[in-house]
Amino acid sequence: MKKLRFGIFENPQANDSGTSTWRYEGNERVNFESLEYWENLAKICEDAGLDFLFLADAWGWSEVNGERPDVALTEGLDIPRLDPAVVASAIAAKTDKLGVVITGSTLLERPYYFARKLASLDHLSKGRIGWNIVTTGTAETAVKAFGMQMVEHDKRYDMADDFVNVCYNLWEGAWEPDAFVRDKNGVFADPNKVHEVSYEGPYFKSQGYGNTSYSPQGTPTLFQAGTSPRGRRFGGKHGECIFLGGSSVEQLREQVSAIREEAVKSGRAADSVKTMAALPCVVAPTREEAEQKYRDIVASQNPDVAVASYAMFTGLDLSSYDRDTPMTSLHTELSQSQISRFEGQTVGDVLDAWAAHGVRGDAVVGSPTEVADRICELAEGADLDGFLITPLVQPGSTQDFIEYVLPILRERGVAAEGYEEDTLRERLLGTDSPHLRDDHPGAGYRKNA
Amino acid sequence: MKKLRFGIFENPQANDSGTSTWRYEGNERVNFESLEYWENLAKICEDAGLDFLFLADAWGWSEVNGERPDVALTEGLDIPRLDPAVVASAIAAKTDKLGVVITGSTLLERPYYFARKLASLDHLSKGRIGWNIVTTGTAETAVKAFGMQMVEHDKRYDMADDFVNVCYNLWEGAWEPDAFVRDKNGVFADPNKVHEVSYEGPYFKSQGYGNTSYSPQGTPTLFQAGTSPRGRRFGGKHGECIFLGGSSVEQLREQVSAIREEAVKSGRAADSVKTMAALPCVVAPTREEAEQKYRDIVASQNPDVAVASYAMFTGLDLSSYDRDTPMTSLHTELSQSQISRFEGQTVGDVLDAWAAHGVRGDAVVGSPTEVADRICELAEGADLDGFLITPLVQPGSTQDFIEYVLPILRERGVAAEGYEEDTLRERLLGTDSPHLRDDHPGAGYRKNA
Repeated sequence: MKKLRFGIFENPQANDSGTSTWRYEGNERVNFESLEYWENLAKICEDAGLDFLFLADAWGWSEVNGERPDVALTEGLDIPRLDPAVVASAIAAKTDKLGVVITGSTLLERPYYFARKLASLDHLSKGRIGWNIVTTGTAETAVKAFGMQMVEHDKRYDMADDFVNVCYNLWEGAWEPDAFVRDKNGVFADPNKVHEVSYEGPYFKSQGYGNTSYSPQGTPTLFQAGTSPRGRRFGGKHGECIFLGGSSVEQLREQVSAIREEAVKSGRAADSVKTMAALPCVVAPTREEAEQKYRDIVASQNPDVAVASYAMFTGLDLSSYDRDTPMTSLHTELSQSQISRFEGQTVGDVLDAWAAHGVRGDAVVGSPTEVADRICELAEGADLDGFLITPLVQPGSTQDFIEYVLPILRERGVAAEGYEEDTLRERLLGTDSPHLRDDHPGAGYRKNA
Repeated sequence: MKKLRFGIFENPQANDSGTSTWRYEGNERVNFESLEYWENLAKICEDAGLDFLFLADAWGWSEVNGERPDVALTEGLDIPRLDPAVVASAIAAKTDKLGVVITGSTLLERPYYFARKLASLDHLSKGRIGWNIVTTGTAETAVKAFGMQMVEHDKRYDMADDFVNVCYNLWEGAWEPDAFVRDKNGVFADPNKVHEVSYEGPYFKSQGYGNTSYSPQGTPTLFQAGTSPRGRRFGGKHGECIFLGGSSVEQLREQVSAIREEAVKSGRAADSVKTMAALPCVVAPTREEAEQKYRDIVASQNPDVAVASYAMFTGLDLSSYDRDTPMTSLHTELSQSQISRFEGQTVGDVLDAWAAHGVRGDAVVGSPTEVADRICELAEGADLDGFLITPLVQPGSTQDFIEYVLPILRERGVAAEGYEEDTLRERLLGTDSPHLRDDHPGAGYRKNA
């Protein structure tokens, strides 16, 4: 079995994934606005040799019937947040080895600006940065906040293709890796290795020179998590690590093979795309203690957030339906496969489930051996390369995973041991170069003097 | 005499201000891409109790006759750079007291995004952030890089007015300072203190909720350096610290009184605007050693950068004129006051001066007492509140100022002693609140529950 890689899923806001666990005793995420919170968490991850901290992002807020419900504020469903790039730079400054993945929106960022920001992070961190490419799911409220026009789903992915092309031009083509010579008795930069960029796409254009030199990784390690057909096509083309949801071997295996197929269609090796599944887990010395802890975490939440939470992630307002209404009668706009997921469930069932765990689904709950077994079973059964632990409370869930589960996985030889490689890409992709693989579309933008 | 405040002017690129001092032995600025460079410099500043590190920014590059000259790269005139916000966050993480001012362009940033970024920096740094508001002088090349349309000078200031209004809405009006309660037995955030923003200006609009809570300063401390009539009007209205150029008492005094007049016209107290002059200085134990050091720094540069440097800052290409041509015959598009500055000078004179010190003008060169005397003379004569030391080499120039000049100024009781106040605003403005003064236009955006 391959050596699994592990990251911690985080979000610079007090709650995450549509939950409201902020009240849970010992959950320190309410302190997300302080440097101390991030420094402490990053050091816990680095001391354990975890591969990276993943910083999600969102711009919108929940609306039910076009109105922002008070419960979203009283229970901390969405805002306030911090800028993940600002948090990432502080984390990089406080650590030496830990990777940091930030989420950046191709709808809301400007590519020339964004390319410099990520290259700057990659320089300061010496190649430890990843970019989770998103097209912004909660776009309806976000575009209002930005004063922009709405762009429909598949077109957002066309924009994303265009956006990454600008970035590849700047990250790969504008400066050759050895262009910035800095030889005090020779030249500062070699003009023959600094190339003019001339890009004109349907959404973005850029003409001129790159503002940053070639960073340690060139292109930061690219993460993606699209689940729609168009999203998977994008992920299979550009993603190097694909972040998957789903709690069964079958659900995960279907996604893994679909994304690898897309990669092959784009001319990439199937195993050049690494797959990492979201894993909410609650672990304690015994199964009974773990179950009790999970019950306590769920009980700490206010069930009234469920309607707003569900609306935020799906756009569907369940408040106007009777709890007994079958879900399958509502989802007229959803695809057949999505509808089939709700067979036999009522509106009340779904709201209860969302009140408990938001978008993440049921947690894996058990003793250290049970959780380790489940991780191995999922990884083997679905051909996974790793997991993104989605902690219910912080830093407790992270610490529990590190204390109880990671040692077992390392003893079994199925979890990587720490930091053999310097850059995030080498670590996650198992390559011996910090740069994009030659079969990645971004590599085609390189120029040689 | 008032207690003067001191910041260090920096730029996340290897050369600065149109100079090419990168070859000078001991100049470590070529390492600007590394965290170690910034950490070392920031600690030098913090250990000395300097008020802040100022990070300039630029997006464009030099063009002569529409072409990028090779010398700009071989001598490091402009690119590559890093993102000042990324550098600022790392510096804030590595320091406890030092202020950090970043430059941000109202032409190239998106205000809803930018407001979150600055609030995030202000949160993580606990109120040590300033924003140097620029409309982007080197806009011709920058807008090409961004794939945008050019906006003419005065209109860029109209945009800036509009941009800051969006920011004031988000920083001051969206969240009241005590809205984010985080009481685990009560509420997460008080919905009555989180207000909907609805802004529609000529250039920008924003509808919805602020993405960050009220940060320690609310609005970061606002810096401005506009010199045109429109720029001064903007600076007098919004600026809290005005960064001035000029090397004589007369030049500085004219600017100080003009900006204070503009402040009063905007309904602000004249002394609510603090003025800080750029100060390139070279100091050594004796005047002779200082002069020798200045000669060595100037001699380390390649005079061939002068044409490109001058073109970058002024838009005027001097390469096609004979060195003997009088400058006054060229500047047909410049104002009368600008032309008068060049009386008696030839193209050759100006190129020689730019080869030596770029846009900054002659350095103050002398023994510790001489430099301290000059600082006092400028401050008293022009009613200045402080200086931005513009170091010719780093960290040497900063260390020299700290070692030789600062102790004399402190002994004379004319330089602040260190960090009595926590936030940058309290320190620089001498107020007892970290928030905008009530007579600042941004304060009018506050809402009360």
